[in-house]
Amino acid sequence: MGTVALLSDEEVSAEALAVFNDIRAVRGTDFINNFWRALAHDPALLKATWERLKVVMAPGALDPLVKEMLYVAVSTANGCSYCVHSHTAGAKAKGMTDEMYGELLAVIGMAMQTNGIVTGLQVPVDEVFEA
Amino acid sequence: MGTVALLSDEEVSAEALAVFNDIRAVRGTDFINNFWRALAHDPALLKATWERLKVVMAPGALDPLVKEMLYVAVSTANGCSYCVHSHTAGAKAKGMTDEMYGELLAVIGMAMQTNGIVTGLQVPVDEVFEA
Amino acid sequence: MGTVALLSDEEVSAEALAVFNDIRAVRGTDFINNFWRALAHDPALLKATWERLKVVMAPGALDPLVKEMLYVAVSTANGCSYCVHSHTAGAKAKGMTDEMYGELLAVIGMAMQTNGIVTGLQVPVDEVFEA
Amino acid sequence: MGTVALLSDEEVSAEALAVFNDIRAVRGTDFINNFWRALAHDPALLKATWERLKVVMAPGALDPLVKEMLYVAVSTANGCSYCVHSHTAGAKAKGMTDEMYGELLAVIGMAMQTNGIVTGLQVPVDEVFEA
Amino acid sequence: MGTVALLSDEEVSAEALAVFNDIRAVRGTDFINNFWRALAHDPALLKATWERLKVVMAPGALDPLVKEMLYVAVSTANGCSYCVHSHTAGAKAKGMTDEMYGELLAVIGMAMQTNGIVTGLQVPVDEVFEA
Amino acid sequence: MGTVALLSDEEVSAEALAVFNDIRAVRGTDFINNFWRALAHDPALLKATWERLKVVMAPGALDPLVKEMLYVAVSTANGCSYCVHSHTAGAKAKGMTDEMYGELLAVIGMAMQTNGIVTGLQVPVDEVFEA
Repeated sequence: MGTVALLSDEEVSAEALAVFNDIRAVRGTDFINNFWRALAHDPALLKATWERLKVVMAPGALDPLVKEMLYVAVSTANGCSYCVHSHTAGAKAKGMTDEMYGELLAVIGMAMQTNGIVTGLQVPVDEVFEA
Repeated sequence: MGTVALLSDEEVSAEALAVFNDIRAVRGTDFINNFWRALAHDPALLKATWERLKVVMAPGALDPLVKEMLYVAVSTANGCSYCVHSHTAGAKAKGMTDEMYGELLAVIGMAMQTNGIVTGLQVPVDEVFEA
Repeated sequence: MGTVALLSDEEVSAEALAVFNDIRAVRGTDFINNFWRALAHDPALLKATWERLKVVMAPGALDPLVKEMLYVAVSTANGCSYCVHSHTAGAKAKGMTDEMYGELLAVIGMAMQTNGIVTGLQVPVDEVFEA
Repeated sequence: MGTVALLSDEEVSAEALAVFNDIRAVRGTDFINNFWRALAHDPALLKATWERLKVVMAPGALDPLVKEMLYVAVSTANGCSYCVHSHTAGAKAKGMTDEMYGELLAVIGMAMQTNGIVTGLQVPVDEVFEA
Repeated sequence: MGTVALLSDEEVSAEALAVFNDIRAVRGTDFINNFWRALAHDPALLKATWERLKVVMAPGALDPLVKEMLYVAVSTANGCSYCVHSHTAGAKAKGMTDEMYGELLAVIGMAMQTNGIVTGLQVPVDEVFEA
Repeated sequence: MGTVALLSDEEVSAEALAVFNDIRAVRGTDFINNFWRALAHDPALLKATWERLKVVMAPGALDPLVKEMLYVAVSTANGCSYCVHSHTAGAKAKGMTDEMYGELLAVIGMAMQTNGIVTGLQVPVDEVFEA
């Protein structure tokens, strides 16, 4: 798998290495996962993606665990295997219990199910739902 | 829009009306939104869908607002306009603030973005993410 | 809605009109639905699409009603409103009863649901399912 | 692959084992495929999913083979590899011939193609298709 | 349609108005389309989205018209009606001819078609395609 | 992986072999990739798919490299791993540089991102974008 090689620290540009090191500092681990090692072929895209991710996933009105679960939900609906794996691991690392994970899967399944039935019926939007 | 007519209380079967009334009791409102009025053409499917939804969306390890936001996330990725509208309204009714909504949209956008880049690169899953 | 105007019989090229007339002959009706009127801006694409559709949807090992329901299933999963509407109408015209329609929606909903749960769990394929 | 371990009969709860045994009884085989072994981490979700699947996929106005093919169609559009594999195997077990399979693929391909062209053109729905 | 109101210049914050004015300057027109007027409820998300869009869609190794067509292709596959409309308009404004548009639609349709057939067959990736 | 076996030249029908040989002649290589070897189980579908692909991907108002990149964009949004791999290889073979590939990924990511935000907001289409 992969349309590009995964780059080691020794193979990346200085700009990409700086991003790797910021990822390490923010996450408090030396581990750099494959996404960043693939993306390092384009240091500008790597940097823009990481800089934005750092802002979006930071604690705010929603806590980081909720954000990880939302990420899993979107990635599942889009069928991105890598993303499902990495953000499920991220959610577990941030405290997602087995019970929470079961409920996350149940909500995803329920939403997928009614998405299908609603789209099949082409239900018109209730006026009360419009802004 | 719609592949079937929306049924009024007077037009539905007794079984479907019983579901409508349970929806009213659980939600504490007389309002029945269009999804259920379309689904009432098939009382068995209506009943099974509502009974399951009631269980899945009930408070549990995840709170109902988080579940509504997860529902919005999945529905957005699947492009289900009706579902986005109805569950965004549901999330607002359960206390989603403007700030939370902005962060929800930002996480959805971020996830969609990296779903695309990861899938484009076909990044192999890191062993550490596997169970 | 629409990125191009819908073309009347008077506005289309001779090549496109010949396709319209073949659609009329095959379907036994004068009615040309909007898809073909939009596609007529590109007579070659119109012709290629219609010629292939005619072959694919003809009676074969699967009967035309089953094919229409499969078409609805795919179009629903892809969120194509127009396609859901037109092929649901097609299925009804070919004999889909209310009971069959209810089961079609139930299967679509079930498949969507387990698609979500399976993808969320990233279940590895059983060896026995591989060719 | 997998965000959770696959559970053996010895590792699952009594409630999950009861579901496994019902699957065995209904299907007339000892084999339990990976989906259920992954889902067994959450016995309640396992049970709800199986109970519903049993109802939805039972013979009715549509025969079980048609239902399996519809399941393949939805799973394909959603890009669920596991689901495509398992339900294609299910369809073959229920009598899908090579010729039927070829037509199933041709309809899926045709539907995907026109879904794309229609969505690209944003064709407005014909009034005659509305309920 | 819409989960939020569209904001006029008078209703937006100073930060959002500055973004509107940069959009006007970059595009050489006073017109602000609805996307930005909806997004202005969250000035930070508005600003981050516009700043990134400006970089990504600028002339580079790919010319802006190609980028607009790629945008249409992705938006079509994702079923985003608004995006298909706005970026098709953008592509036309950048010089997309009728002939190019027909070919764009034909490629989208072809890709959708083989996406479906390949996923249905679960074809293993050729080693020669791996990095 | 795979719901059918990959067929060697010796195993396919004469009709399928003729398609293989045309693929070889058009592409100027002996190599037949797995898609065609899987599809050869249904010679009619193989032939129809190849004949259409040959027309759609030929040089026209859009050059073949742009067409390959559009194919990658659609395949990525649809999550078709095989298609992403094969058409990325195709694009590279037709001259896609690293810089172009980086921009392709950036546009895909940007489009995915705004597809999500727009769909989340259910932004109404501006009148000026309608045909």
